[in-house]
Amino acid sequence: MTSAARGRRPGSPDTRADILEAARALFASGGFSGTSIRAVAARAGVDPALVHHYFGSKDDLFVAALQLPFDLREVVGPVVAQGPDGAAERLLRVFLSVWDDPELQPPLLALARSLTDPTSKALMRDGFLKVVIGPLGAALGIDSPERRMPVAASQMMGLIFMRYLLQVEPLASMPADELVATYAPTLQRYLTGPLPPVGGRE
Amino acid sequence: MTSAARGRRPGSPDTRADILEAARALFASGGFSGTSIRAVAARAGVDPALVHHYFGSKDDLFVAALQLPFDLREVVGPVVAQGPDGAAERLLRVFLSVWDDPELQPPLLALARSLTDPTSKALMRDGFLKVVIGPLGAALGIDSPERRMPVAASQMMGLIFMRYLLQVEPLASMPADELVATYAPTLQRYLTGPLPPVGGRE
Repeated sequence: MTSAARGRRPGSPDTRADILEAARALFASGGFSGTSIRAVAARAGVDPALVHHYFGSKDDLFVAALQLPFDLREVVGPVVAQGPDGAAERLLRVFLSVWDDPELQPPLLALARSLTDPTSKALMRDGFLKVVIGPLGAALGIDSPERRMPVAASQMMGLIFMRYLLQVEPLASMPADELVATYAPTLQRYLTGPLPPVGGRE
Repeated sequence: MTSAARGRRPGSPDTRADILEAARALFASGGFSGTSIRAVAARAGVDPALVHHYFGSKDDLFVAALQLPFDLREVVGPVVAQGPDGAAERLLRVFLSVWDDPELQPPLLALARSLTDPTSKALMRDGFLKVVIGPLGAALGIDSPERRMPVAASQMMGLIFMRYLLQVEPLASMPADELVATYAPTLQRYLTGPLPPVGGRE
């Protein structure tokens, strides 16, 4: 089905929103790897070229479908550029500056709360880690990013949960410097420290 | 209002459930410290002595109101009894054995998913940490449990989130030994390692 078949001009104001809606639905049901640009285009009733025109690559479309209130890859770019030494502290500071921003926090909280929905769960598991967190680890130049990054993400997620969602003290009011002093050694070990043997026994 | 005023005999099968329902509602709206046994009794339409009869202390009533599918304090008793050395590994093994139990996991997952509800959020923040996690830290004999336990909980929560809720690999399938090797050093540092200065700067 072409957009003409639905009586709509290509590039109308609704087209971009239609593509995004189709992408969110398909990524949620089929996962990142099970979703093609062609399928998104078909569901939105547009030509695949139009999807590329609006959103670029499938990775870019996926990041757009996450609807983060900021450009994650732009924010973490400077962190990545400086390599693995001290990366944990730089990541934590960027992360806290984004989450503590009074304009960014409400949409981020809404996103975090929605993670227990089946739709967002599939988006997160299948895509966020592959497209955003995985490449971040690879760009940092650490070994075994596919093992290290989910472990690092588990500490970041837990901090988000306690500080921003449950607002548990003393974490909710803790200054950034104290949070960095508390969590950076953990994250740096997860990113660059010795890994236990797979399976857990020597 | 007495139970007679509601036309119900004290100790009827519904009385216990009524008290529990009243306790959950009041802990959720008023928090742990803002809720009295007397207020719970009044809301349930029973005598305060009956609340004590069924549930013991206010701490006990609170633990019952959390509706955990196992007795948390019974499970962590042996961990606590052996003191702070190696406590992180023992806590992780108990924690994983409970969460990996096929009968306990579904109700625990339901509880974890409900943490984003305002009701469960208040129960958790105001009570769980004060009544369960705080005393656990104190019983372990660590210093500053009120600072250390929420930090330790942030890593446990993040692990629950990634392994059980989002089921992100490799964490979802990781054997217990590998999880212990990965996370015990972090938890042990949070429990007994050096604390950063309050505020984060020397």
